[in-house]
Amino acid sequence: MIFRDAEPADIPYIVSLLADDPLGAQRERLGDQGYYTALKEIDASDSTRLIVAEEDGIVVGCLQLAILPGFARRGMRRAQFESVRIAGSQRSKGLGALLAAEGVRLAREAGCGMIELASDATRKDAHRFWERQGFKASHVGYKLMLTD
Amino acid sequence: MIFRDAEPADIPYIVSLLADDPLGAQRERLGDQGYYTALKEIDASDSTRLIVAEEDGIVVGCLQLAILPGFARRGMRRAQFESVRIAGSQRSKGLGALLAAEGVRLAREAGCGMIELASDATRKDAHRFWERQGFKASHVGYKLMLTD
Repeated sequence: MIFRDAEPADIPYIVSLLADDPLGAQRERLGDQGYYTALKEIDASDSTRLIVAEEDGIVVGCLQLAILPGFARRGMRRAQFESVRIAGSQRSKGLGALLAAEGVRLAREAGCGMIELASDATRKDAHRFWERQGFKASHVGYKLMLTD
Repeated sequence: MIFRDAEPADIPYIVSLLADDPLGAQRERLGDQGYYTALKEIDASDSTRLIVAEEDGIVVGCLQLAILPGFARRGMRRAQFESVRIAGSQRSKGLGALLAAEGVRLAREAGCGMIELASDATRKDAHRFWERQGFKASHVGYKLMLTD
């Protein structure tokens, strides 16, 4: 499996990964132009990368990684994982663990003292996955929607 | 109450706010140079601001705000709140709600579709506060520490 930054041609594949579950199916829409704008904004940002995992030339996973400066904890830099997915057909082969490990490697390389992520309370399989990767469910994740 | 970006002279006051609870007391250390480095990094970043709330010339609150591009949800930009505190002597006067509202205003202004935050599972008062501000406890917040 190789890891690289997403390119515009990957967008339909990444959207398919995100849409392939009950929550994502409601939120994502293949062909929406917002994804193209967002990828440009990600590429231009100094905080965020969208990483794809590729196997035999096929996108089988994705992980959005943000590296953020932080004031608390004596000025600790933090990483955040978002939109971590492995293709349904490729699950239970350990690819998720490899993708998470790549995120951890990049966070360490960037000097982060901590990685954070929030997982929807209904995603019980994801919770077991993150616990296996050593993450601790120490926090309550809050969201406030600003759009309808 | 006025809101402005933190300056180096505010650092001891902000650290005091963060250190004024059982969790913060273990993590923060007044005089640590890491805060000065972090504030420089925050000021240089395109993602993050450290906002202080000032009343009668005194720093009474702080909120770290990140505005991040996002791929999921049709390319939805997100805001994150971190290190939100009001001075112990100034609590229960509604200042926290004003500070949170300023964060919400800035997030909307930046085109964010959502605000996220993670609150330590032991901070029951904070949970009630965020619920009063309209935030939903829809997620489990995971952390992986990379330092000792």
